[in-house]
Amino acid sequence: MSEFRQNLATKEWVILSADRGKRPSDFIKEKPQREPAPPHKADCPFCQGNEHLTAEPTLIYSQEGQWVVRVVPNKFAALQPDQDTRRSLVGAFLSAHGFGIAEVVIEHPQHNLTLARMKVEGVATVLRAYRDRQQAISRNPNVNLVTIFRNHGPRAGTSLVHPHSQIIATPIVPPHVRNPWEQAIGYYDETGRCVYCDMMREELRQGYRIIAETERFVAFCPFAARSPYEARIYPKRHMPSFVSMKDDDLGDMAGILRDLLARLFYCLDDPDYNFIIRSAAIGDEDVRYLHWYMVVIPKVSIPAGFEMGSGIYINSVAPEDSARALRDTHINLA
Amino acid sequence: MSEFRQNLATKEWVILSADRGKRPSDFIKEKPQREPAPPHKADCPFCQGNEHLTAEPTLIYSQEGQWVVRVVPNKFAALQPDQDTRRSLVGAFLSAHGFGIAEVVIEHPQHNLTLARMKVEGVATVLRAYRDRQQAISRNPNVNLVTIFRNHGPRAGTSLVHPHSQIIATPIVPPHVRNPWEQAIGYYDETGRCVYCDMMREELRQGYRIIAETERFVAFCPFAARSPYEARIYPKRHMPSFVSMKDDDLGDMAGILRDLLARLFYCLDDPDYNFIIRSAAIGDEDVRYLHWYMVVIPKVSIPAGFEMGSGIYINSVAPEDSARALRDTHINLA
Repeated sequence: MSEFRQNLATKEWVILSADRGKRPSDFIKEKPQREPAPPHKADCPFCQGNEHLTAEPTLIYSQEGQWVVRVVPNKFAALQPDQDTRRSLVGAFLSAHGFGIAEVVIEHPQHNLTLARMKVEGVATVLRAYRDRQQAISRNPNVNLVTIFRNHGPRAGTSLVHPHSQIIATPIVPPHVRNPWEQAIGYYDETGRCVYCDMMREELRQGYRIIAETERFVAFCPFAARSPYEARIYPKRHMPSFVSMKDDDLGDMAGILRDLLARLFYCLDDPDYNFIIRSAAIGDEDVRYLHWYMVVIPKVSIPAGFEMGSGIYINSVAPEDSARALRDTHINLA
Repeated sequence: MSEFRQNLATKEWVILSADRGKRPSDFIKEKPQREPAPPHKADCPFCQGNEHLTAEPTLIYSQEGQWVVRVVPNKFAALQPDQDTRRSLVGAFLSAHGFGIAEVVIEHPQHNLTLARMKVEGVATVLRAYRDRQQAISRNPNVNLVTIFRNHGPRAGTSLVHPHSQIIATPIVPPHVRNPWEQAIGYYDETGRCVYCDMMREELRQGYRIIAETERFVAFCPFAARSPYEARIYPKRHMPSFVSMKDDDLGDMAGILRDLLARLFYCLDDPDYNFIIRSAAIGDEDVRYLHWYMVVIPKVSIPAGFEMGSGIYINSVAPEDSARALRDTHINLA
């Protein structure tokens, strides 16, 4: 018995294939073994003492005379801030120079200390760096969208072990981002409400898929989760853009984010994962129909031809079961 | 120097990051080694002599008293034809039973003979099976979309070595498929022309990205290719759905498809890949604004957080260079 489920906000469908239901231990078995990393590596450009190996930082947070978070321009950036943004035709096809901003957030001086096992204060400082850089980058009149994300492990697309995340700012808002917003506008016009606020309220009411909750945030596996153990963190207050985060919000979110990542770490034995902050475009910070959120996707399945062709994901673990496994995970941190 | 390029049909953007430009040999080095497969495997459910291990076929093509292509229901189907298609609410969320049709096309009796090295007549028979099954499945009034695809190798999402492709028919047309069609309707309303016909004409006019051409088909790396060596095959004649393929079309397409897959095989040392036939929904077989095509995506890069968040792909090889490498590849087949 399987089931189609529709994402209320994007109208995308997924297939829950319960016959293929898998326990966390099944995914651990499928994972390639990884070498434990040392706390310091002489040739790592992000390690303490190697600061000269990166470009001039755009932001540094320090404590007791030592940096705790550094943000630097990406050395292998696919986009550059010194390009112009004019679009031009190549025959009938549209093209533009690669204008944009690409930065790396070095999350901690230590080579092997990931967010899942950092102290909550450290996670709050990383979130503060995201917010402050998003605010600063948003003042560039040529930037329209800031994407903040983290690739953890080789299956999630990174080979650099040192804990880091990335910020990429683009002059364009692509259809992949715009299309769900158009659905949200339609929903707002019809109901007078933000569809994301409604989704969160409904998740809280049904309850089965909630992982954790704080005063200001809720973490859950969504009704139409596209893959096993996919989770989201929503601010409870209507807030379209991550730039509007107050310091108190950052502290509260750091607690639930560290908690969620620690649960994933212990439940799935340090899985590779991506997380992404989906936030409104620049200029849309106050609209009534959008709501920023973070999505965390452990890389435990491979999207194949059907997913690429149809955009319909086949999920082998019901989000109710993913949420229960994460809730029941014993986390062993200070 | 990098560059944004827009897909004329979908309006999606990609980033060409030429600084990261890579030659075919770079991708070969990154590929995990694979064991050569034997021509017959005693426990393979798709091998000759093991026909009793699959469900009753929905289609068999034979030659000289022996099957050459078998189509069977997928034993591990995520969707089942005996479900009803009513949609219902779970609180505020939409859900439906897992109605659908999932079949496997066993492309050849031999365990290790893939499309890239089959005879053109064999490839034509596989394409005939696709077409005939799509025609038959399209008569089911509850089916709205038929997706035909092939996952080759573990990085492309398959673990079964025996050459096979898949057909999945769904009761829904998801936004991922519908949204580009809406762009195509907009283009048609504005210009009176099919945007895919125009794209193909422009590719033929510019010429740099053409890999091969026959009387009825053209294979090229598209202007806004999302990943290295991504290639497409378009019918030259306006044809919204693969169901409209005539026998002569199938024979002509088999030649160019075998040629393209052989070029990929020799250029990238038998890469893992997906291919997908993007074809109109059932009932849209005669519309003037759609055009079926096949997209072939070698799995040589990993979409990470940025791609997942923005839908903007960073391609490290210009499609002009991919096309030239494929054109220049020496293929060594009968």
